[in-house]
Amino acid sequence: MSGGVTAPRGYRAAGVSAGIKANQGLDLALIVSETPATASGVFTLNKAQAASVLVSKEHLAKSGGTSRAIVVNSGCANACTGADGLQAARDMAAETAALLRCPVEQVLVASTGVIGVALPMDRVRAGLPVAVAALGADQGAAAARAIMTTDPFPKDAATSVAVGGRSFAIGGIAKGSGMIEPMMATMLAFVTTDAAVPKPLLDRALREAVDDTFNAITVDGDSSTNDCVFVLANGASGVTVDESSYGAFADGLRDVCRRLAIGIVRGGEGATKLVTVTVSGAASAADARTCAKAIANSLLVKTAIHGGDPNWGRLIAVAGRAGVAFDQSRATVTIGDIVLFSDGAPHDERAPKAAEYLKGTDLAVGVDLGVGHAASTVWTCDLSAEYVRINADYRT
Amino acid sequence: MSGGVTAPRGYRAAGVSAGIKANQGLDLALIVSETPATASGVFTLNKAQAASVLVSKEHLAKSGGTSRAIVVNSGCANACTGADGLQAARDMAAETAALLRCPVEQVLVASTGVIGVALPMDRVRAGLPVAVAALGADQGAAAARAIMTTDPFPKDAATSVAVGGRSFAIGGIAKGSGMIEPMMATMLAFVTTDAAVPKPLLDRALREAVDDTFNAITVDGDSSTNDCVFVLANGASGVTVDESSYGAFADGLRDVCRRLAIGIVRGGEGATKLVTVTVSGAASAADARTCAKAIANSLLVKTAIHGGDPNWGRLIAVAGRAGVAFDQSRATVTIGDIVLFSDGAPHDERAPKAAEYLKGTDLAVGVDLGVGHAASTVWTCDLSAEYVRINADYRT
Repeated sequence: MSGGVTAPRGYRAAGVSAGIKANQGLDLALIVSETPATASGVFTLNKAQAASVLVSKEHLAKSGGTSRAIVVNSGCANACTGADGLQAARDMAAETAALLRCPVEQVLVASTGVIGVALPMDRVRAGLPVAVAALGADQGAAAARAIMTTDPFPKDAATSVAVGGRSFAIGGIAKGSGMIEPMMATMLAFVTTDAAVPKPLLDRALREAVDDTFNAITVDGDSSTNDCVFVLANGASGVTVDESSYGAFADGLRDVCRRLAIGIVRGGEGATKLVTVTVSGAASAADARTCAKAIANSLLVKTAIHGGDPNWGRLIAVAGRAGVAFDQSRATVTIGDIVLFSDGAPHDERAPKAAEYLKGTDLAVGVDLGVGHAASTVWTCDLSAEYVRINADYRT
Repeated sequence: MSGGVTAPRGYRAAGVSAGIKANQGLDLALIVSETPATASGVFTLNKAQAASVLVSKEHLAKSGGTSRAIVVNSGCANACTGADGLQAARDMAAETAALLRCPVEQVLVASTGVIGVALPMDRVRAGLPVAVAALGADQGAAAARAIMTTDPFPKDAATSVAVGGRSFAIGGIAKGSGMIEPMMATMLAFVTTDAAVPKPLLDRALREAVDDTFNAITVDGDSSTNDCVFVLANGASGVTVDESSYGAFADGLRDVCRRLAIGIVRGGEGATKLVTVTVSGAASAADARTCAKAIANSLLVKTAIHGGDPNWGRLIAVAGRAGVAFDQSRATVTIGDIVLFSDGAPHDERAPKAAEYLKGTDLAVGVDLGVGHAASTVWTCDLSAEYVRINADYRT
C-alpha cells in the first residue's frame, strides 16, 4: 500500500518550500485530518526539549487528545532558543489553526534541523497559506520529503488491516537521520489511520509499537531534543477498534512503525549497510536490549562492518563490557549464519566466508550471551568516512 | 625527566622484534626490576578477559604482590583464544621466568592486538632471549615503542618526587589507541618507581590515580579485553613511602598516569585534536562524570570539533539525554572561554569567535548543568574519516 500518511481515508497533506532551508528545498509540511482525530504522541526524554515538543505536549493535554493537523518545519530545530523560540512555536500553531479554522490546541507542531538557531517566523507565516493551498489526498509523498534534513531518501509506509470483513488503513512518514538513538520516539514520525480508536487504546498501541521499533534503532547513539511520534485516528473508514480488534490494529501500527524505523537506519547519515543486531541467551530482556544497543553503537563494530571485516572479536568485547550477565565459555558469535566463536574457542577459519557475506548491504550479526533465554533485536547502520564528512561540515 | 620506565633506578627494559607483527616492527617488550619489587595491578572489567589478564591476576595473587618482570607482546591480543591461548600466556611467563631465573609468579604478562587470533608462541620463544640480551637501563623508549599497535607515537612519562631531602622517581609507558574507554585502566600502561612502597599504599595510590586519569579518558567508547595497568616499586632509591609521604607519592603517580592517559587520547586513532571536557554545576560527582563521558563519546560532538564547527547545540543535547539532573534554563555551554548558551538563551553571535578557537589542536569545552556544585573532567579526541579508515581496514 502506498501513500504514507494519505493512504488512510480522510487525510490531506502538503510539502512546500518556505525558504527555511538555505537550499530552497521543501521545508514545510502539513498533515490535516478532515475531521477531528483522536491523537496520541510520544516525545523525547531528552531534558533539553525543543519548543515544538513543549507546545505539542501542551496541546495534546488541553485538547484531551483531539487533533486536526500537524505542522512541521525542517531546516531549524527551534531548540534551545529561549522564550522567543517558544513564542515562535506557539505562533506557528496559531497561524495554522487560523488557516484551517480549528482550535489552536488541535494543531500539533514539530521542528527539525540545527539546534540553537531562531526559527524565521516571517518565512513560516508566508509559507503556511501556500501549504494549505497545496493540501491534497495524494500529497503524502511531498510531506515525507518536506520533513527531511540529512536524510538521503524519504521514508513512508502504509498497510491495510482487515477486521471482521471491513478494513482500515494505517500510514506514516518519518525522517532521520542523525542524532538518532531515540529515547522515546525517533526524531520525527507521523502516523495516520482511518480507524476510530479510543484514546486509551491508541495510547497503548503507540507506546507498545514505539518500544519495539523507533526505540530499537540507533544511527549514532545520540538522542534528539526534538524526537516525537504522533498518531492520528479519524474513523473515516467506519471501523472502530475495540479490545477484540486491538491486536490487529496494534500489529498493523507496529508494522508501519517498524518499516519507518528501519528506513531511518537504512538512510542513516553516511550509512551503506543496514545491520540487524540480535542478542539472545540473555538473563533478561533488559540485558538483551542493553547489549544489543551497545553492539549497535560500537564504533569498532560499525567500522568493521563498513570495511567488510569479520572482526567478531569486537562483538564479544562489547558483550563483555556491556554490563550484562555474560559467560564467555558458553557464548556464541555469529555473522549471518556463520558461527565464528562458540564454546570458548574461535572458528577464525570461517572468517573468509563471513567476509564474503559482509559484502552484502542487508546484514545480521548475533551474540548469544550463554546465560539465559531472553532476546532482543535492534537495527543499526555501518559507520563510514562519509558520516564524519556530513557531521564535521553540518553547519558550514 | 626522561626515560619512562627506566627513569627510576634499578630497572632495565627492552623492545625487540619477534616477528609477531606482520610488518616486522618492535613487538616484544620486557621491563625488569633488578630486585623483587612490590607490585600492584588494575585490570579491565570487561567480562571477556584476555589470557594475559587471567594469568597476571593469578600471578599477583600467588606472589602476594611481588614482581620481577613484565613481559608484553603487541600484534596479538591473545583474547578469546580458549585453552590454547591460556597455555600460551602461561608459557610466555614461564619462559621469561626461566631466562631471568625467578619464580614464574613474579612475571606479569600483557598482550595487545587483534582479538581471537592465536599467539605465535614459536616466535615469542625465539624472541625472548633476544629481548633479555637487549635489556638496558636506557631502553625505556624501546619498550614504549614495542607495545604500540595503531598508536601514532610512543607514550612515556617520568617525574622526580622529593620527600624529606631525598628523592625518588616514577616513570611509565602506555599504549592506546583504539577500543579505549577503560573501565579500570587503559589498554596497557606500566609504571615503575624506585621508592619502596608498602603493598596497601601502592594499591591505594594506583586505584586513586587510575580513576582520575586512565578511567577519565575515551577515544571510541569501547573497553578492551586486555586493559591493565601495572606499577612496580623496587625501593632502589632508598626512600620508603609511608603515610606521611603518601600524598607526595600519590601526586607523582597521578601526574605520570595523567600524562600517559592524555598521551593515549592525543594519539587516539585518527585523532587530530585533544579535547578536555569539563562538566560542572552537577548534582553529584557521578552525574558530572556520566555527563562528561557522554559528551566525550558523542559522535556528533566529536565530528563537529573535527570540522571546527562551534555546534554548541550538540553539547546541550547530550547533557539533556545523559540521564543526569539538568536545568536548561540555568545551564551554560562554553567552547574555550566563549559562552555560547546561558540563562536559557543562545549567544550564537559568538559562534565565529568559537570557530576561530576550534582551529587549535588542544581544546576545551564545558557544560554547567545548572543544578549543583560537583564537577568532573575527562579527555577525548575528535572523530575523523581517518578513524573510519583505520578501523574498517584493521585486519586487512
